Amino acid sequence: MKTRRVPVITLLTDFGTSDYFVGAVKGAILSVNPAAVIVDITHEIPPQDVETAAFTLLAAYETFPPGTVHFAVVDPGVGSERRAIVVKAGKWLFVGPDNGLFTYIYDREPSHQTFHVTAEKYFRPSPSTTFHGRDIFAPVAATLSKGVKPEAFGPLIADEVRFATSTTPTIIHIDHFGNCITNITRDLFDSSKQPTLLVKRKVIDTFVDFYGAAPPNTLVAIWGSAGFLEISVNGKSAAKILGAKRGDPVILRTQKGT
Amino acid sequence: MKTRRVPVITLLTDFGTSDYFVGAVKGAILSVNPAAVIVDITHEIPPQDVETAAFTLLAAYETFPPGTVHFAVVDPGVGSERRAIVVKAGKWLFVGPDNGLFTYIYDREPSHQTFHVTAEKYFRPSPSTTFHGRDIFAPVAATLSKGVKPEAFGPLIADEVRFATSTTPTIIHIDHFGNCITNITRDLFDSSKQPTLLVKRKVIDTFVDFYGAAPPNTLVAIWGSAGFLEISVNGKSAAKILGAKRGDPVILRTQKGT
Amino acid sequence: MKTRRVPVITLLTDFGTSDYFVGAVKGAILSVNPAAVIVDITHEIPPQDVETAAFTLLAAYETFPPGTVHFAVVDPGVGSERRAIVVKAGKWLFVGPDNGLFTYIYDREPSHQTFHVTAEKYFRPSPSTTFHGRDIFAPVAATLSKGVKPEAFGPLIADEVRFATSTTPTIIHIDHFGNCITNITRDLFDSSKQPTLLVKRKVIDTFVDFYGAAPPNTLVAIWGSAGFLEISVNGKSAAKILGAKRGDPVILRTQKGT
Repeated sequence: MKTRRVPVITLLTDFGTSDYFVGAVKGAILSVNPAAVIVDITHEIPPQDVETAAFTLLAAYETFPPGTVHFAVVDPGVGSERRAIVVKAGKWLFVGPDNGLFTYIYDREPSHQTFHVTAEKYFRPSPSTTFHGRDIFAPVAATLSKGVKPEAFGPLIADEVRFATSTTPTIIHIDHFGNCITNITRDLFDSSKQPTLLVKRKVIDTFVDFYGAAPPNTLVAIWGSAGFLEISVNGKSAAKILGAKRGDPVILRTQKGT
Repeated sequence: MKTRRVPVITLLTDFGTSDYFVGAVKGAILSVNPAAVIVDITHEIPPQDVETAAFTLLAAYETFPPGTVHFAVVDPGVGSERRAIVVKAGKWLFVGPDNGLFTYIYDREPSHQTFHVTAEKYFRPSPSTTFHGRDIFAPVAATLSKGVKPEAFGPLIADEVRFATSTTPTIIHIDHFGNCITNITRDLFDSSKQPTLLVKRKVIDTFVDFYGAAPPNTLVAIWGSAGFLEISVNGKSAAKILGAKRGDPVILRTQKGT
Repeated sequence: MKTRRVPVITLLTDFGTSDYFVGAVKGAILSVNPAAVIVDITHEIPPQDVETAAFTLLAAYETFPPGTVHFAVVDPGVGSERRAIVVKAGKWLFVGPDNGLFTYIYDREPSHQTFHVTAEKYFRPSPSTTFHGRDIFAPVAATLSKGVKPEAFGPLIADEVRFATSTTPTIIHIDHFGNCITNITRDLFDSSKQPTLLVKRKVIDTFVDFYGAAPPNTLVAIWGSAGFLEISVNGKSAAKILGAKRGDPVILRTQKGT
């Protein structure tokens, strides 16, 4: 079977799934591009939690085919002066508010381009002030998925909003199992030096290859599927056991050398 | 890219998403029309809450492309004598039980037509008495999406079931953020008269254009994205603060004139 | 409209819907087969609950079109030596870990064939040890959906893992409404003998045809939509009222004859 180009649009929001919001976004997309293949990443980002959304997007975006349009809308500033943007980064496109949501994408794809969406002809008629997801971002994403270039939506900008990211080892995300995901990647990590972690005054010196290999009731470190070192407890919430939260520092110690 | 006709079917139910029910409905649809594009609106309508389902459908249906089939099944009477119906309203089709679920659609689209579904040849073989969603409504929706006319499913009826809707200002829905949605629309509202709202003995005289513009801890009125006036508190549940529930009256007062 | 073959892939997991896991699986599938039609059955199987997953799959799989690939991943042993398998059963294909997840499918489709997935060329490059859903099962399911034969993935095996199933009447599942689903099917049941059920020392002798026909606050038996006899209380949780859980025995008594 020959692989054909399919216009995939992913959705990542804090809309929840009990109201009409997600349905309305999908309807607005299909009204512009009925051939769009819409894929939910999640709609359960904690309300207005831009950093959790940014991490979730980082962990998922590369698995999608080149050309996929990632619609990401966690938008505390809806209706205010914050900009709507389209980002072209690597082989993918991104649509959402300019509030830091794409911070990790900017870091991972340094040669990205960001466009300020100003071309109102691509919006729904009379857009509301409360639901830009439906009235602005959905039709823009659908138009992109039809092959219209990012340049068509507005001017290139260089001052996109980012949130501060830590350059030192830090917990950047806690998943719903309570695993604590750090910003430590393999290239920052020399296992020959037998490193240990110190988090909230607890030493973590057991490294395992998969969750099932962890001894019971033991804090372990494991390379998670998003490419980051995670702190985990088999079948329990490491975050609760540690009392850890996003932003907590991680101290990386080495036994040998240093 | 040329826009082609795509057979979209939306789903709106109280089935929840943890059991096999939604999967079975989707399988039953795809078995009849493998080309159907199935879109979830929500499956988290509170169990048997026909009025919440009716509001959610009202708020979403128009965003979908003409020809979309809206499958809406919140069906306390499954297995009893209540009728299955197909409704043709505006540019859209609707399938579900005749229990009031389409009340707001009937009001919004006065020239609709309602058909009593009696043509058993479109049902799954040996339909169960407990799961008409899978055995009757799913194959009927899928058949409609293939282009079969509503008339083919049974006789036109004029006595469809409606629930009572208020003709005076009322809270008709509370969303999961706690916003109180009223039935007040812009055409009923003369902003030049500086109106205020009175709900549960509280005066609401602050009107804002978007959620972020609301002062903290203040009840505000805002035009919501479904076209109705909403009562909202920035980042909090207005319904809890007011002690308000669906059906509570709203008194609309004007400062100037009367 | 001519029915065309569509590559449907269903998903059944315990991943939840708030993290990036489901999105990453969908991306991995679409990267291999962009034409795949992905359908969620559920992602809310209780963590690591293989038996609930097995029941849910049993209740849904047959509604899907022939050729559908059912991706089912509840995988406490991810990263360990447990095998990845492809099962060909009836008109459907199944992909997942060899941990009993397909036990009911094996029983229902005795002439099935099970293949041990060993052909690493179908995996994502450098598969992780923690997320085989994305790195192994997703690309295998997508490859199957493109028409590659199950035989291509590895050798036929005869010793697939099953969990013990009861041959005597038992509660095999409790759904999220609290209905207690037994393993009693119509062919095991002679209604002419006026049978009654005894569960947790409570007698159930009221049989109804649909939920709405049950008298209030009464334990009733009803033929559920998955083909099994269920114990139900109208609008309440029969499981809570009985104090029943999965695995509890059901005694089937007959009034006439024996």
